[in-house]
Amino acid sequence: MEYVSLEEITQPTLLLDEVKCKRNIQRMNEKIRALGIEFRPHFKTHQSKAIATWFKAIGVTKIAVSSLKMAQYFMQTNWTDILIAFPINLRELDQILKVSKIVDLKVVISELYSLEFLKNVLTVPLNIYLEIDVGYKRSGFDYQDADSITNALKIMQKSKFLILEGIISHNGLNYFAKSRDEVLELHQAFLMELNKIKEHIKGQGFDPILSVGDTPSASISNEFPGVDELRPGNFVFYDLMQMNLGSCDFNDIAVCVAAPVVAVYPERKELIAYAGAIHLSKEYIEMEGTKVYGLVVELSNGNWTEPVPNSYVSRITQEHSVIRMDDKLINRIKPGDLLGIIPVHSCLTADAMKSYCVPKKGFLDHL
Amino acid sequence: MEYVSLEEITQPTLLLDEVKCKRNIQRMNEKIRALGIEFRPHFKTHQSKAIATWFKAIGVTKIAVSSLKMAQYFMQTNWTDILIAFPINLRELDQILKVSKIVDLKVVISELYSLEFLKNVLTVPLNIYLEIDVGYKRSGFDYQDADSITNALKIMQKSKFLILEGIISHNGLNYFAKSRDEVLELHQAFLMELNKIKEHIKGQGFDPILSVGDTPSASISNEFPGVDELRPGNFVFYDLMQMNLGSCDFNDIAVCVAAPVVAVYPERKELIAYAGAIHLSKEYIEMEGTKVYGLVVELSNGNWTEPVPNSYVSRITQEHSVIRMDDKLINRIKPGDLLGIIPVHSCLTADAMKSYCVPKKGFLDHL
Repeated sequence: MEYVSLEEITQPTLLLDEVKCKRNIQRMNEKIRALGIEFRPHFKTHQSKAIATWFKAIGVTKIAVSSLKMAQYFMQTNWTDILIAFPINLRELDQILKVSKIVDLKVVISELYSLEFLKNVLTVPLNIYLEIDVGYKRSGFDYQDADSITNALKIMQKSKFLILEGIISHNGLNYFAKSRDEVLELHQAFLMELNKIKEHIKGQGFDPILSVGDTPSASISNEFPGVDELRPGNFVFYDLMQMNLGSCDFNDIAVCVAAPVVAVYPERKELIAYAGAIHLSKEYIEMEGTKVYGLVVELSNGNWTEPVPNSYVSRITQEHSVIRMDDKLINRIKPGDLLGIIPVHSCLTADAMKSYCVPKKGFLDHL
Repeated sequence: MEYVSLEEITQPTLLLDEVKCKRNIQRMNEKIRALGIEFRPHFKTHQSKAIATWFKAIGVTKIAVSSLKMAQYFMQTNWTDILIAFPINLRELDQILKVSKIVDLKVVISELYSLEFLKNVLTVPLNIYLEIDVGYKRSGFDYQDADSITNALKIMQKSKFLILEGIISHNGLNYFAKSRDEVLELHQAFLMELNKIKEHIKGQGFDPILSVGDTPSASISNEFPGVDELRPGNFVFYDLMQMNLGSCDFNDIAVCVAAPVVAVYPERKELIAYAGAIHLSKEYIEMEGTKVYGLVVELSNGNWTEPVPNSYVSRITQEHSVIRMDDKLINRIKPGDLLGIIPVHSCLTADAMKSYCVPKKGFLDHL
């Protein structure tokens, strides 16, 4: 299908607003360049070669991905500087080394065992980003564990094949912030700790760059002391979670699931749309104490409205969304209509949907 | 890849225990046949032509699916009696009518508008199941709304193309039960209401069958008064949610995600596995007040252990699982090892993973 109009949509379909998406990309690119920082966008959110070309068009050459599979996918369209921003998976080492022969690949080391392992088996150079965990407690060397970090540096000093290029960290704590100000506070504290570690590592004779990159701080803050590279990903689409954090306005959100209405129950103020957990994911946010799995918009060709007041996805099962809706609109909606659902977490929705429909233009690819 | 051993697994992979799965199928089939009820398994859980053949081998001929797309997929391997157990999507009506020419297709009507619409446009017969909502408040005619049900019957009486074959209902409330006894109570109350409606509809000159089918009641109860057809789906694999409800034992669960370990933090009693929300889904259960996104098992070829004590997936992001683990085991686990994660909700995990790996045997297809 080359050109798509809403009339042709019969199943849950991920709509992409190309204008908003390109604007998000352009704005982030300009902001980061103006700060004198390298931009290495994280492509795990869109996973699309077509969207990747919009980055290439404005001069982006470095990318982050979250799996070897994604690195291989983007390699096919001549991306040549790729960071796999996920702890190295030793089970994929053979493939990683193959890819590393073809492109400038960087891998992430998040604890000592993998580093020691690589030291013992490598016979060719491998570019490394050392992951530091500043209290998020997912992966990375604990920022307070100076001994382990020192041991990592010692291992790298002993190997000519372990090339320390960067320090990497993800401030996942920002996602728990209650306001823009709290994001800024968390961001500042995060960078202060990372700069101490950067200095410590430099003191040992290395010269790594500092790479950070969550969308909330990349969107909200203007201060990135000591940061050499920013790698936000979600900003390409944004979503309700980001809007709630203050990273974006509603009108920056560039994706929306077109969902066929299959049943309307005005007496319950509820309707059922065909778009479930396998399309939107089960991610929710709390809005005024209520679990929200998506906000509802009306669709017209190439556009969607502001959120319908007092309307949201209140429950979600494999293929059903239960949508709460005010009397006013629900009496106009009929089975066979199409509604839009703005996702809570666009990364998971995009991964689940597997392709993008640009209204009036056609479908874009997805890994 | 024809034959797979654990050593060959490098990425998150959905393992299927063929013996457990076939035993689940056989047991449910025998139970339902012994009750003199028709078995119409719901194929939305596995979505696999290969697994479908295991049902065919024991004489199953009728199936339920949850989308037109699934009906078309199973039609390709000669399934000829298919119920789309989801409110009819009028946007797909042309395709539905095409499929209905080829196989014995049944569609679900969940409110008056769609029924009236079909009455006005149909020029060929369409087999209908009328959906009744007994308090779950997802889709279906409210069981207490006698007027709407009577109106639906009147519309069908006026059309020679609307063929009422069944009454369908899903007792989703069972998923909120706290014990097997509560499932039985809910199940009994549910069937009592449905039998009243069945009698009412029969009084109007129709002769529909009664089709129900959640896995908890199909697994736990032995009494199905008035029920003509059972259509459970999840039992084919079961999962932690079902185990928690008492529908199955741990050893009945037939799927497990093999997840590469990428980082181990013994001091935190946590490790990171490569298997995230895009593999397992974000579904969780509460176990002793704690959110659990999966239980952890050790893997050997063709088998997995009982759950590792005091170990579970405590947090999950796009591609990372954070696993809590006791001192005893965590000191044995290294990056590059493979652990198994038993999913909370196998329907969502199977949909996300898109294929099944039968250890030592190979990969099975998925829609």
